[in-house]
Amino acid sequence: MVNVGILGATGMVGQRFIELLGDHPDFQITALTASKRSAGKKYEDAVTWYLDSKIPEEARDITVVDTDPGEVKDVDIVFSALPAGIALGVEPKFAEAGMIVASNAAAMRMEPDVPLVIPEVNPEHLELVELQKKNRGWDGFIVTNPNCSTIALTMTLKPLYDEFDIERVYVSTMQAVSGAGYDGVPSMAIVDNLVPFIGEEEEKMETETLELLGDLDEGSITPAKFGVSTSCHRVAVLDGHTEAVFIEMADDFTVEDVDQSFREFQGLPQKLDLYSAPATPIIVREEDNRPQPRMDRNAEHGMAVTVGRIRKDEAFGNSLKYVLVGHNTIRGAAGASILNAELIKEIM
Amino acid sequence: MVNVGILGATGMVGQRFIELLGDHPDFQITALTASKRSAGKKYEDAVTWYLDSKIPEEARDITVVDTDPGEVKDVDIVFSALPAGIALGVEPKFAEAGMIVASNAAAMRMEPDVPLVIPEVNPEHLELVELQKKNRGWDGFIVTNPNCSTIALTMTLKPLYDEFDIERVYVSTMQAVSGAGYDGVPSMAIVDNLVPFIGEEEEKMETETLELLGDLDEGSITPAKFGVSTSCHRVAVLDGHTEAVFIEMADDFTVEDVDQSFREFQGLPQKLDLYSAPATPIIVREEDNRPQPRMDRNAEHGMAVTVGRIRKDEAFGNSLKYVLVGHNTIRGAAGASILNAELIKEIM
Amino acid sequence: MVNVGILGATGMVGQRFIELLGDHPDFQITALTASKRSAGKKYEDAVTWYLDSKIPEEARDITVVDTDPGEVKDVDIVFSALPAGIALGVEPKFAEAGMIVASNAAAMRMEPDVPLVIPEVNPEHLELVELQKKNRGWDGFIVTNPNCSTIALTMTLKPLYDEFDIERVYVSTMQAVSGAGYDGVPSMAIVDNLVPFIGEEEEKMETETLELLGDLDEGSITPAKFGVSTSCHRVAVLDGHTEAVFIEMADDFTVEDVDQSFREFQGLPQKLDLYSAPATPIIVREEDNRPQPRMDRNAEHGMAVTVGRIRKDEAFGNSLKYVLVGHNTIRGAAGASILNAELIKEIM
Amino acid sequence: MVNVGILGATGMVGQRFIELLGDHPDFQITALTASKRSAGKKYEDAVTWYLDSKIPEEARDITVVDTDPGEVKDVDIVFSALPAGIALGVEPKFAEAGMIVASNAAAMRMEPDVPLVIPEVNPEHLELVELQKKNRGWDGFIVTNPNCSTIALTMTLKPLYDEFDIERVYVSTMQAVSGAGYDGVPSMAIVDNLVPFIGEEEEKMETETLELLGDLDEGSITPAKFGVSTSCHRVAVLDGHTEAVFIEMADDFTVEDVDQSFREFQGLPQKLDLYSAPATPIIVREEDNRPQPRMDRNAEHGMAVTVGRIRKDEAFGNSLKYVLVGHNTIRGAAGASILNAELIKEIM
Repeated sequence: MVNVGILGATGMVGQRFIELLGDHPDFQITALTASKRSAGKKYEDAVTWYLDSKIPEEARDITVVDTDPGEVKDVDIVFSALPAGIALGVEPKFAEAGMIVASNAAAMRMEPDVPLVIPEVNPEHLELVELQKKNRGWDGFIVTNPNCSTIALTMTLKPLYDEFDIERVYVSTMQAVSGAGYDGVPSMAIVDNLVPFIGEEEEKMETETLELLGDLDEGSITPAKFGVSTSCHRVAVLDGHTEAVFIEMADDFTVEDVDQSFREFQGLPQKLDLYSAPATPIIVREEDNRPQPRMDRNAEHGMAVTVGRIRKDEAFGNSLKYVLVGHNTIRGAAGASILNAELIKEIM
Repeated sequence: MVNVGILGATGMVGQRFIELLGDHPDFQITALTASKRSAGKKYEDAVTWYLDSKIPEEARDITVVDTDPGEVKDVDIVFSALPAGIALGVEPKFAEAGMIVASNAAAMRMEPDVPLVIPEVNPEHLELVELQKKNRGWDGFIVTNPNCSTIALTMTLKPLYDEFDIERVYVSTMQAVSGAGYDGVPSMAIVDNLVPFIGEEEEKMETETLELLGDLDEGSITPAKFGVSTSCHRVAVLDGHTEAVFIEMADDFTVEDVDQSFREFQGLPQKLDLYSAPATPIIVREEDNRPQPRMDRNAEHGMAVTVGRIRKDEAFGNSLKYVLVGHNTIRGAAGASILNAELIKEIM
Repeated sequence: MVNVGILGATGMVGQRFIELLGDHPDFQITALTASKRSAGKKYEDAVTWYLDSKIPEEARDITVVDTDPGEVKDVDIVFSALPAGIALGVEPKFAEAGMIVASNAAAMRMEPDVPLVIPEVNPEHLELVELQKKNRGWDGFIVTNPNCSTIALTMTLKPLYDEFDIERVYVSTMQAVSGAGYDGVPSMAIVDNLVPFIGEEEEKMETETLELLGDLDEGSITPAKFGVSTSCHRVAVLDGHTEAVFIEMADDFTVEDVDQSFREFQGLPQKLDLYSAPATPIIVREEDNRPQPRMDRNAEHGMAVTVGRIRKDEAFGNSLKYVLVGHNTIRGAAGASILNAELIKEIM
Repeated sequence: MVNVGILGATGMVGQRFIELLGDHPDFQITALTASKRSAGKKYEDAVTWYLDSKIPEEARDITVVDTDPGEVKDVDIVFSALPAGIALGVEPKFAEAGMIVASNAAAMRMEPDVPLVIPEVNPEHLELVELQKKNRGWDGFIVTNPNCSTIALTMTLKPLYDEFDIERVYVSTMQAVSGAGYDGVPSMAIVDNLVPFIGEEEEKMETETLELLGDLDEGSITPAKFGVSTSCHRVAVLDGHTEAVFIEMADDFTVEDVDQSFREFQGLPQKLDLYSAPATPIIVREEDNRPQPRMDRNAEHGMAVTVGRIRKDEAFGNSLKYVLVGHNTIRGAAGASILNAELIKEIM
């Protein structure tokens, strides 16, 4: 068993880390950090547990400590559920102290020597770790996963990018309120309403997607070349981001080809049979009215992306459209970091 | 005062007709029709009134009759809130009987001699009426308005189409449940959920938009030439459709130009100062997080379309994106038919 | 393994039966019935599956038959998820044909020789079965469970009734939309709203509660003597009924005594360790803001009732108040019938 | 015109004050206060306007000042929408400076010389003002209105208290999220959920109700003698509190008598024809499924309370039950203070 810690363990994503790690066969939670206000308390006393599962036994009695590498002993991997502002200052210290930091925070994602990885999409980018350690003189290192809506989108783009020639991608999201944290979206803002704006979300999706599909060559990533344009919206859904995707291809294609690409897609986590890897990373639904967030977010324990309504635009030459749903705090956050850590443990 | 009737007066859209006509200066409700089950009852006894306004006095005591021109006496204009299947058989009979039918139903929209009109967009298409009367030997005639989501979209496309060279339009909608009728969307389908499918909605938007912006020449419409691709979704909002719009232009443009086009847009209803015409048909909001359906649907008594988040895509050459909100059962249905009738009364 | 069938297998409660029986150690689903429209189809083709679990393998390929005992072969127990109107005509035929009918329908609940049973509350009422068989000359028999909101309420009243002298009970419910069936509550009725009426619900709660706590003597039930008054309301919650309970006691009591009565409560299913029996039938939460339906409905796989906010009214002499949550389609419907069947199988 | 100010003008209740005063015939808004952060800004720049109406012209350009009587010049009446903690320190200073303070805050409600008034219920309690001014040596004075859920309840109890002998009242509330302020209830707490707790709400309802119906004699109030027990819950409704009320009477009664008492109820504001007074303070709906918050909250511009489902409990001797809806931020807050001020202006 590998000893792991969770940085920022009391928030929404922190709780998902604990839920997912509670019965993990290879990772044992031995450290939990939070703000100074919680430090010194037992986890079950420090947390307002929002999930409908119970707090896993192994976390319940752990004494929460300050988010400081000096407080986190005998731990090999830390999962970071920290807010970006705090992550920026703290994550490097954990890496410097020799730990592997598998981070869900946005802070370090765009550093040129920090890999931004979805194991099914670009596991080879993990090579950047060597450069990072050398550059920074660290014993440990930082690996990040993308933004929640980027992950779901890019998992579906990967097989298309490999088989077709993508020119432009337009995405309109309908995102769950949990993505903003427990207090992030007041009910006054979302009952009988939606909010057509999520701060920095469009920029993240437009940048990270191309980075993930980019080529690593001689220690630097050349982003993929097609265009991505997004419009992000918050709707009255608890968990599960839905995205309407329109893709202009350079060449003709058939819906059957696309459907098959999705269904047959397998990445390295599936080949390695990693514990948190979904057997079917992209599930295709045939019903007209699927995917739906409440019905499909938990597919493959929340680690698969579900796709439906695959259509070819007759009006345009080579345009494809489909709808996807992915669980934003599992596949899009805590589960993403954990799968990164499983991959690192297996191949590095 | 012109005597008017409402066909299908007890449903969601029928009720909106009555609410909007209740204090209309030129139209007097004198006939209400519904299914055989309601015929013979006073309107207030026949209807389950869903709106939060009161039933207007003038409608309360009218005896509901069967939807048959023989039952509707001394009426000049009938507004049709009938389901498409019924409208197909019945609306022609009312036109044959000499009445003007201002219809919100989809049934006759695509008939080549039936005008499909938004008064701000294509009032000149009303000329088709002469052809229709001649073709069919009717004393009356039928005029239709488009689908709710088409109206809001096309009102914003009109000034752009006049000033810029639109190549492709991608639209992802987040539509209110009222659009499906009172019983149309079960709460089990929409609480903590959304439904990424609305039957025939995408087809209607893709066809009607081009028809509306098409040229009438020698009695036939040549649709506009750009491409429209839509993805339609139902969300937990009562009233007010939101649409994320992406437009590829042939040429360069500035956000300021687009903004100004929207703000300065005035159509014939504004020039004629029609009673139901919004003074500002397109309202531009500058806040990052607007338009929102609950906050903006009632702008200009529900007859304006509100636009926000006007952005230029830096990644692509000449791509524009924005978000719009329009009230689906007012501007997108009953109010649309009434404005059509006001225009007909004024200019024909 | 006992072969079981489900009558009305495609509706909301029917699906819960199938979900709960899918991995049951003693019951094997071998027959599924539905309306004529579905008969002849494989279950997975006949059903629109609403739950977020998958259809259990053992049900997927069963050919749905008409709800007629002649169509249901080699089955010992049938679970009835039929609407009351249909149940009235059909359930007796299944009993006559020799099957045990464990029914969730209201139709036969108030027949004097048909036991209305919650296994934790009044297992001894099962004795009525002998009378029923004799009276009606049936080889099989019918056992019913109460209405969903009655079950949750009465489970919490049982330990109080045993230890204290209850005089009056006032209950105000906040019920989930799933209780009305998938199409039962339109979203237009419940978004930004609630509905303060549920047909026949108050009558059922007021009658069934006293029947359940009544004494069986010489083949007839004498209902409990205290008063029950209810007010039933539908709120925007998917699953899980919440009830605010006020109880006037004849004598003084302490909150600690009540708390302990709840916590220590164990019924016959717990003693017999029945498969679906919750280890803790009444869970007491100490947080100010619990129980909440989304957080607590799934406690003990949806089979426990969760209680909180136990308070003594200082203003009155001996008044108690608390709030409870129970899962309406599990503990309050399908799970209730299954637990009845498990009890019958164990003790009869 | 009387010059009025609003203390705490940027919050939910502050905005309702401005909306309601925007076209008031007797009150002219001339001062607006808020926290230091907003002081110095024009109101339209300082506020995030949450209502779906527009900011009234007369408020738009007023420069917001600090909540300090020295900053509020030439104002006769200030309406207080301050949080209780701040109100406690600040409201007395405004009274001392000679202004009439019509407060919606809880801070001073239970001071023995500060009247807690609903104009339809206990206008005679305004006599306490003389005592207050004398006691405290103030030129101005403070008048308060009760908590939102107390107001709606007590308006319906008043005619019953006058005509029947009330012994006990049990109330279960289903309260709107706006009552907690814009940020008060996270969407994560209320989507597919409800929260069975509102801090201090039950205590306020149980105390204030009896105070309001109490007798003023020689400068002190003797509270009414019956018991009130409440259970308060937050549900997914934006505006409008719903309450299920159970009343035990000492004597027999008929539903017709109760119905008539509600319908005929008129208070002093109706007799004086005050501007904000609802013509019918208690509206009785006869439909089984009314009142509903979305349909009934705006009755009489949000100033009436709507009652329905008036029933007599057959099981008990003399028990009554009914359901009520009142608009929590209009009748239950801003409108209540304004009606108090109108009454003061008229009779003092």
